[in-house]
Amino acid sequence: MRTPVQNAELALLLEVTGTPKPGNVDRKRDFPDLRFEHFLAGAVGAQDGLAAAAAGDSVGSAFERAVEGMSEQEGGNTQFGALLLLCPLLAADDRSRNAVRAVVKGTTVDDAAAFYRAFEHVDVFVDDPPDGTEPLDVRRGADAVPAVRERGLTLADVLALGDDEDDVAREWSTGFERSFRTADRIVELAGPISSRAARAHLELLAERPDTLVAKQHGSATAERVRERAEELLDAEVEAVDAFADSLVKKGVNPGTTADIVAAGLFLALERGVTV
Amino acid sequence: MRTPVQNAELALLLEVTGTPKPGNVDRKRDFPDLRFEHFLAGAVGAQDGLAAAAAGDSVGSAFERAVEGMSEQEGGNTQFGALLLLCPLLAADDRSRNAVRAVVKGTTVDDAAAFYRAFEHVDVFVDDPPDGTEPLDVRRGADAVPAVRERGLTLADVLALGDDEDDVAREWSTGFERSFRTADRIVELAGPISSRAARAHLELLAERPDTLVAKQHGSATAERVRERAEELLDAEVEAVDAFADSLVKKGVNPGTTADIVAAGLFLALERGVTV
Repeated sequence: MRTPVQNAELALLLEVTGTPKPGNVDRKRDFPDLRFEHFLAGAVGAQDGLAAAAAGDSVGSAFERAVEGMSEQEGGNTQFGALLLLCPLLAADDRSRNAVRAVVKGTTVDDAAAFYRAFEHVDVFVDDPPDGTEPLDVRRGADAVPAVRERGLTLADVLALGDDEDDVAREWSTGFERSFRTADRIVELAGPISSRAARAHLELLAERPDTLVAKQHGSATAERVRERAEELLDAEVEAVDAFADSLVKKGVNPGTTADIVAAGLFLALERGVTV
Repeated sequence: MRTPVQNAELALLLEVTGTPKPGNVDRKRDFPDLRFEHFLAGAVGAQDGLAAAAAGDSVGSAFERAVEGMSEQEGGNTQFGALLLLCPLLAADDRSRNAVRAVVKGTTVDDAAAFYRAFEHVDVFVDDPPDGTEPLDVRRGADAVPAVRERGLTLADVLALGDDEDDVAREWSTGFERSFRTADRIVELAGPISSRAARAHLELLAERPDTLVAKQHGSATAERVRERAEELLDAEVEAVDAFADSLVKKGVNPGTTADIVAAGLFLALERGVTV
């Protein structure tokens, strides 16, 4: 029997393997400086942090450790968002929405501080913070920790500040609604698990504009990507493949959607979906 | 810093990713019932056994545990031979040839018994045993253990019985000569590490007929594959790709060569080659 930590790692590996996953590194596609093998090394490197989350260490410090290990490869940020979903899910006893809600609710100011420190290990693409929260800009890394402590913000509080603009943060605020729904889809679809994950990716992409695309290329582009994904829901795989190629060529990378697929894969593996 | 166990697992993942790797599952190719994702699950599942080898458990029982974990996927045998190389390498203090020779020399009858039990967890393609050694046929699994004990054979002894016909066993008898040489090549080549591994695979294939191909399709076929690999050493990647496709189509799978590449990748990662 694979352990939950092993399932989390396998979820990261299966996520990057599923193809076509429009705009993301997948089994068939690399970006020039962010390649498939960086994701392999990221998944392996994250192990100790994932294990810490499963063992009951505080979610923030487990996450920081996972990000630190993930970063030991030359591609940069591979799975920051996915780890931010997997750590609380690993900490949630029975992988239920109630349990993960309790984990979120139980986060502390120390967890928030560790979350800020995680940004010291890797460059993560983030937008300007909302007005009035400049001292809490995650790009300040550890320098923002005094402001976090002064305001007494927990990790859940910090993520709630950004949940309008970041769909990983939104998972934290909604009891991981889309992660669980993605798990349901992966359980109910047929075929190899990485193909199911690719299908789930397309469906998620058709549902809401990807927030990483919105941050990097603007909300109009994110909406166009969403619309095209929706049009392709009933298309042949060749058309999805062509869309995937075109997004990679333009450097349009719906990475938030991939993060949610990784969380869904983990929950599906925990429910016994076989590989 | 990745641990040696994490490097071993990453080696398994990078091995299956490298492409084109003629006749093997790689990033671009699956067999109908043996797919890329089975190798991902095999690599993750092998973790506990690999960790046991690194922690100083006996090589045979660590290997059996690795094979048991590897087998928790629906593709069958993915990395049996690679694990038979990685376990003694993980047990060898400083990853030197002398250290791994000492590990081989130190194996016991109990290690041999565990090796036989490993065959209970997965179907491994093997030939008829040499004349006079039928009671030691690995296909008998645990049933062969009394004969092994009666003859007082260590794991090194058992593998030496097959080292003419199986190039993984031959590594055990030669101080892992080709594994170390492959590591040297991966260190000296340029480019992404999985591409270096694919090149090393082609060079190994050009050097000696693959023993899995010889067992499954006869030595004439194995020699023809070797000759074609040799012809392709200076060819464009498209020609190697076409050869890879043709072997997969015929079901000709040089799996022993892949096992040695995995061992070479592990040693190269331990020497600090970056991903």
